[in-house]
Amino acid sequence: MRIGIDAMGGDRAPDEQVKGAVAAREVLDEGDKVLLIGDESVIRKCLEDCPGTHEHVEIRHTDQKIEMGESPVEALRAKPTSSIALMAELHRDGQIDACISAGNTGACVAAAQMRLRRLRGVHRPGIAIVTPTFWTPVAVCDVGANVNCRPSHLHQYGVMSSIYLRVMCNIDSPRVGLLSIGQEDAKGNTLVKETRDLLKNDSNIRFIGNVEGRDLFRDVCDVIICDGFVGNVVLKLIEGMAASVLEGMLRELAESMPSQAKAILQASTDLRGKYDYNEYGGAPLLGVAGICIICHGASNHRGIMNAVRVAKDFASYHVNEQITKLLSPDRGTRDE
Amino acid sequence: MRIGIDAMGGDRAPDEQVKGAVAAREVLDEGDKVLLIGDESVIRKCLEDCPGTHEHVEIRHTDQKIEMGESPVEALRAKPTSSIALMAELHRDGQIDACISAGNTGACVAAAQMRLRRLRGVHRPGIAIVTPTFWTPVAVCDVGANVNCRPSHLHQYGVMSSIYLRVMCNIDSPRVGLLSIGQEDAKGNTLVKETRDLLKNDSNIRFIGNVEGRDLFRDVCDVIICDGFVGNVVLKLIEGMAASVLEGMLRELAESMPSQAKAILQASTDLRGKYDYNEYGGAPLLGVAGICIICHGASNHRGIMNAVRVAKDFASYHVNEQITKLLSPDRGTRDE
Repeated sequence: MRIGIDAMGGDRAPDEQVKGAVAAREVLDEGDKVLLIGDESVIRKCLEDCPGTHEHVEIRHTDQKIEMGESPVEALRAKPTSSIALMAELHRDGQIDACISAGNTGACVAAAQMRLRRLRGVHRPGIAIVTPTFWTPVAVCDVGANVNCRPSHLHQYGVMSSIYLRVMCNIDSPRVGLLSIGQEDAKGNTLVKETRDLLKNDSNIRFIGNVEGRDLFRDVCDVIICDGFVGNVVLKLIEGMAASVLEGMLRELAESMPSQAKAILQASTDLRGKYDYNEYGGAPLLGVAGICIICHGASNHRGIMNAVRVAKDFASYHVNEQITKLLSPDRGTRDE
Repeated sequence: MRIGIDAMGGDRAPDEQVKGAVAAREVLDEGDKVLLIGDESVIRKCLEDCPGTHEHVEIRHTDQKIEMGESPVEALRAKPTSSIALMAELHRDGQIDACISAGNTGACVAAAQMRLRRLRGVHRPGIAIVTPTFWTPVAVCDVGANVNCRPSHLHQYGVMSSIYLRVMCNIDSPRVGLLSIGQEDAKGNTLVKETRDLLKNDSNIRFIGNVEGRDLFRDVCDVIICDGFVGNVVLKLIEGMAASVLEGMLRELAESMPSQAKAILQASTDLRGKYDYNEYGGAPLLGVAGICIICHGASNHRGIMNAVRVAKDFASYHVNEQITKLLSPDRGTRDE
């Protein structure tokens, strides 16, 4: 398998991207390669700082890159050989089998949709992220690929995320909840109300009904379905709040028991580890005809290495084949 | 001033509602009354358990009440003399000057809209809640009154919340942020993009642009504007997460330093106090022709008492008059 990594995308690029590519050796099989896409001289310099051999690492040069704040579609148009655009093209042409980027998420999604296209029967791709909720990880889909959703999109997110969790996380029959503002059927906006019946009537999903924001932390479901706008707000809220609460706790404790400052810091670090996105290794863009793994912008080398692992598993468990089986219009009966 | 309290609404009703009404004496002026609306015999029994004199408390009997899970509109139709419906009617008829309820939020909103109607020029009322975000309180509007928003609704939430914060919280020129998924203008769903210009072009608001979920915890704005669906998800997420993180921190610390368990528990309690909704005393439903304060379902007597204080301030600072001044169609020029 050949896995592309956007060497230029992310807050800590290219250093952590290159280190991650090197570290990925431990999750690769014999013959597997990672292809770093970006400025060759910069990448080579980073590689020199990495100990060990790097036979599994290749480089594909480009001097264009898309910045984090750029408008995705405009940037892709203005920079046709940016690392993100080039990577999607290489994937389309079969020169790599997967894309990994911690760069501009919107540009990754747009490049994947334009170059790789969608799987047959999929209306809109969605990003499924396993959110670090301290105790029981919950997958949320979509978290930003599709901010103007229709009921059929949400329904398909339920189907695709269920497959993903089943094969990748070994959850036998994932419980799917629809994010709303009350458990009762009547609660929610128009989108949620119109989505309910689609989810209810699909025997391929274990739909448990509406869930609320607080249910992310109560082990009531394994997948939470929402539109990409709400999902993205939720994701950033969790991240901001986790940092804020931990900082607050440390401040309170440091005042009340200064002699224990070291132990408190350690406990806080341990807790932080439980919501460390680097351990989750990136979120798949479900529904595209390829493998596209999107990493947190602040990912370190562990995050990139884990994304390589996710891409490997995604391929070997045939996630896309299973999605097509359920969503493609010529799939035959559902029980086949 | 006469302030109505729904004695039957809330997870801890009627006990905490009655205790709150009694405790409210300390925030009332001479001649002010609170009117407890609900089952008279039950309320009387609760009153007997409250020490002190209760001359400021009156009772208005009804034996109908709306449960938390009921569909608002159906429940209001089926129970025309429920405490919530009756309270709104009493307000409309001038027998009370404000409504307070910790009961079914949807029913409160619907009753207020139907019985009290909207202020002139207001398109949709919205609930503005000052969220306990540990360090710097931020008002979020709307958090559940209006789940299918239009740009003009969000714009008016910006105007009304700014007035509310200015007069009630003494914030001179509140910074208004529009909740989105990135700071750049181009980021967001259709609703957000169409709302931006309305906010930008209104010189009555200090609009700072898009904000993200994490900005709730970073003191970048005083008001966050969003549709009621997103706002409600955010609110419940914060609540669920705060409890979850504190519990997690306690667990980590209890393992690493068991001898300090007591001090840790105290620090956690202190921190919890900083996000205690009871101290904020309920959220106003902005835009109705009256005063309607909505409390957290789990409010205790302090929460109810503080809601009485909010209702008093709302009246004495003439919040509604100021909203009408800016939003009423016959308001003349904006600079008058």
